[in-house]
Amino acid sequence: MSDIKHPATVAIVGAGLVGCLNAIYFAQRGWNVVLYEHRKDMRLPEEKINQRGRSINLAVSERGLSALRKVDMGLEEIVLGAAVPMRARMVHLGKDTQTSQAYSVHGEHINAVDRGRLNELLLNVVGDLPNVRLGFEHHLLHANLENGTMEFSVGPEKIKVFKTADLVIGTDGAYSKTRSQMMRSMRMQYSQEYIDTAYCELSMPPAKDEQGNDTYALDPNHLHIWPRHTFMLIALPNLASTFFFLFFFFLDHSFTCTLFMPFEMFESINTSEKLLEFFQENFPDSIPLIGTKRLVEDYFANQKGSLINIKTSPHNFKDKALILGDAAHAMVPFYGQGMNCGFQDVEVLHEILDKHNVLPSKHENGKIDDLEAALDEYSRVHVKDTHAICDLALYNHYEMQSAVTSVRYLARKKLEGILHIVMPRVVIPLYTMVSFTTMPYSQAIQRWNRQSFWLNTIVGTMAIGTVTAMSYFTVKNKVSVSVPDIIQSVAQLSGFI
Amino acid sequence: MSDIKHPATVAIVGAGLVGCLNAIYFAQRGWNVVLYEHRKDMRLPEEKINQRGRSINLAVSERGLSALRKVDMGLEEIVLGAAVPMRARMVHLGKDTQTSQAYSVHGEHINAVDRGRLNELLLNVVGDLPNVRLGFEHHLLHANLENGTMEFSVGPEKIKVFKTADLVIGTDGAYSKTRSQMMRSMRMQYSQEYIDTAYCELSMPPAKDEQGNDTYALDPNHLHIWPRHTFMLIALPNLASTFFFLFFFFLDHSFTCTLFMPFEMFESINTSEKLLEFFQENFPDSIPLIGTKRLVEDYFANQKGSLINIKTSPHNFKDKALILGDAAHAMVPFYGQGMNCGFQDVEVLHEILDKHNVLPSKHENGKIDDLEAALDEYSRVHVKDTHAICDLALYNHYEMQSAVTSVRYLARKKLEGILHIVMPRVVIPLYTMVSFTTMPYSQAIQRWNRQSFWLNTIVGTMAIGTVTAMSYFTVKNKVSVSVPDIIQSVAQLSGFI
Repeated sequence: MSDIKHPATVAIVGAGLVGCLNAIYFAQRGWNVVLYEHRKDMRLPEEKINQRGRSINLAVSERGLSALRKVDMGLEEIVLGAAVPMRARMVHLGKDTQTSQAYSVHGEHINAVDRGRLNELLLNVVGDLPNVRLGFEHHLLHANLENGTMEFSVGPEKIKVFKTADLVIGTDGAYSKTRSQMMRSMRMQYSQEYIDTAYCELSMPPAKDEQGNDTYALDPNHLHIWPRHTFMLIALPNLASTFFFLFFFFLDHSFTCTLFMPFEMFESINTSEKLLEFFQENFPDSIPLIGTKRLVEDYFANQKGSLINIKTSPHNFKDKALILGDAAHAMVPFYGQGMNCGFQDVEVLHEILDKHNVLPSKHENGKIDDLEAALDEYSRVHVKDTHAICDLALYNHYEMQSAVTSVRYLARKKLEGILHIVMPRVVIPLYTMVSFTTMPYSQAIQRWNRQSFWLNTIVGTMAIGTVTAMSYFTVKNKVSVSVPDIIQSVAQLSGFI
Repeated sequence: MSDIKHPATVAIVGAGLVGCLNAIYFAQRGWNVVLYEHRKDMRLPEEKINQRGRSINLAVSERGLSALRKVDMGLEEIVLGAAVPMRARMVHLGKDTQTSQAYSVHGEHINAVDRGRLNELLLNVVGDLPNVRLGFEHHLLHANLENGTMEFSVGPEKIKVFKTADLVIGTDGAYSKTRSQMMRSMRMQYSQEYIDTAYCELSMPPAKDEQGNDTYALDPNHLHIWPRHTFMLIALPNLASTFFFLFFFFLDHSFTCTLFMPFEMFESINTSEKLLEFFQENFPDSIPLIGTKRLVEDYFANQKGSLINIKTSPHNFKDKALILGDAAHAMVPFYGQGMNCGFQDVEVLHEILDKHNVLPSKHENGKIDDLEAALDEYSRVHVKDTHAICDLALYNHYEMQSAVTSVRYLARKKLEGILHIVMPRVVIPLYTMVSFTTMPYSQAIQRWNRQSFWLNTIVGTMAIGTVTAMSYFTVKNKVSVSVPDIIQSVAQLSGFI
């Protein structure tokens, strides 16, 4: 028979976190993998400096860990070894008021990790794989996805080179060039929405302990939040380690802080005096920890990043191209799920490739058996989950800014937690489903909507019952009680405060 | 004083209908206008052939006419002279069943016009203006809108040229390059949505009258529709004239038909036999009028176009750039408002420029007084109207495909018409507000929603009253009447059928 099979090649455009993990998965499937990246190799010393002040710290949770675990190369351990566990939110209300809100009643935690460091770890793994080639400084200019040809501008000389692949996968982020090339070939539903909030990275250096050694300025096992309704400050711990010595300015008992604020506020706070006054008024406890000099330096030196929500559908173009991660679904960072969702994309994709038994070989005519059916199925089953988490991340923006300080929110949260202990399979808090399971996002939301209906009914019934009892007690004892008193009592009786 | 003013230049990218009209408006304001177009001059004989089978016929209505009227150069008369009035929809139900549904109780009509012909008429006007330069075969590659520089690839040799302007306006259609360049400079909300329906243009030649002269195959003062729920055929008359002799194959008592159908249906109807069978079953009366040979030829030769809905916000980038027409708001063609809305964009823009008294001159530093405030206001007041008509056009897709055949729809329509005669200022049918007024689209929809509430209440009350009366009559006279009979009677009694 003349149908000799040839090895199949996948081109992955973008060697960020999702691109690297996807390269590892495809290498394990036996494909020829070429991983293109428009930047220089970030592991080069001169590149490390460029990364400063450019990204929000990441929180790795179960979806991310599950995808790392599946490749069975010790990746999960490597990543957790570079991470700081965060067991709770620490909500900073006033100058001296802090409340710790555990992420899970079962002690589950999320893990703070530096984006650059994680990317390096993954690049090191990728670099050791025999069937992966890395092409840095490859800037995608144009792609004819129907026949798998790509035109790159390479290196500082911007030399034009043409490359081909049997499958092109874009993991090139929110402003994906792969996606824009796909949109030329197909009818893609696409929406992008900028929110009014911008972000600016600040750094909080180590403090000194009694012996004069470096220590964390805040409890390192918390994600710290200063919620102030229309704006907020957050701080995530960096790993105390000198092992990766080139990151010493970052990774030595320091915190990375991010200030989220409307663009107009960033524009109006345009002098050192206004900045310090603003911090004095809103985040007074953070000033001695960050230091006024560093605060002013970072605030004015670091870029004010915008936040975008992008949804697309479908994510594949026949068996020719696919987008994963931010290229397919950029979300605002308020659920800490951007990278976790991107890693889950990779896991789900490869489960489906397994299910369809897609082999790393192609026919004489370039066709790979069952690949189109598999990629179509990927879009069919997974796109709705990426839309769900995009929506949820927008919603959590509201929650983190203000709801975390409301009595009703906290009561609801506590009740959910208690019911979760009593009936762990029946009532699961949304945060737990999102962060500590791999349940599809859309299912998590459906389930939460059902739960919410019943919880609201229960809380409502309890509140009415308590108010009735209180009123009866009040009248009987001829005590004068105001409505706020009753509400306060309801909350206290119910054990919610 | 050293502040000498210099003449201001506007670059308009895209010499389609909206681009040409906007060039005329800016020329009248005294600006230097440069109108760039990526195609060759469509008035060249060899270009005319290329336009065949490429666009849906247009229906010019009041918004478009108003914008033409305002420039006071006889444009309205020129355009109406090239148009065929359509006073009603002719709904083709079965082989021999046709119903005429007037567009307006006051005899107002819309006007069928050939897109290419209208574009030529406008280009001729533009070409005669002393302060407008035309640059054909200018393909925009890149723009730095902050400083108003544009890079074009010019002519078949693709020579790179740089141009500058004080203001760049994109009228370059749904796949606007100007828009994509704006999106690189600013935070633009953007969404695109393809509908499942595709379209294919067909042509219906003239018939012969008793003397053997050419005549229209159908009543030319109607927009003909064959609604079939998931698909439909429409036909718009072309002007019977040999004046523009180069269009003779089009403009001689012919109709231009458009078949709208899901992509899958187009794919499944892939042989002449299947096509003729499909037409025999669904549009039997159209076959002798189109002719089987021509039907088969056109169906297989003409491209199957996709239909996209695009919304953006804002439409301006400071005082540097602006998008108008399809570049800012592509809509599906089912309300016949795409071009009308684009023309209204131009009228609204220039009203606001007038209001801010924006002069055609700039300062030494390139600033044009009050331009930024004017363009910001344009986005603030007009973007919501473009979103409204995009939504309405999607809704009308449903209405044209199926609702035009439903008893309830027709009853409602008739009642609206009657009330409009009785109370012409209180009740105005939505179609009238959209097509025969220049009222902002969003206001038209708001008004219609209020009206609908009251109309539904009235119809509901009348129906209940009639059913009650009927039932009483039935019982009293011991006549056995079924529920469908009652409904039928309600409709007849109310005079709706």
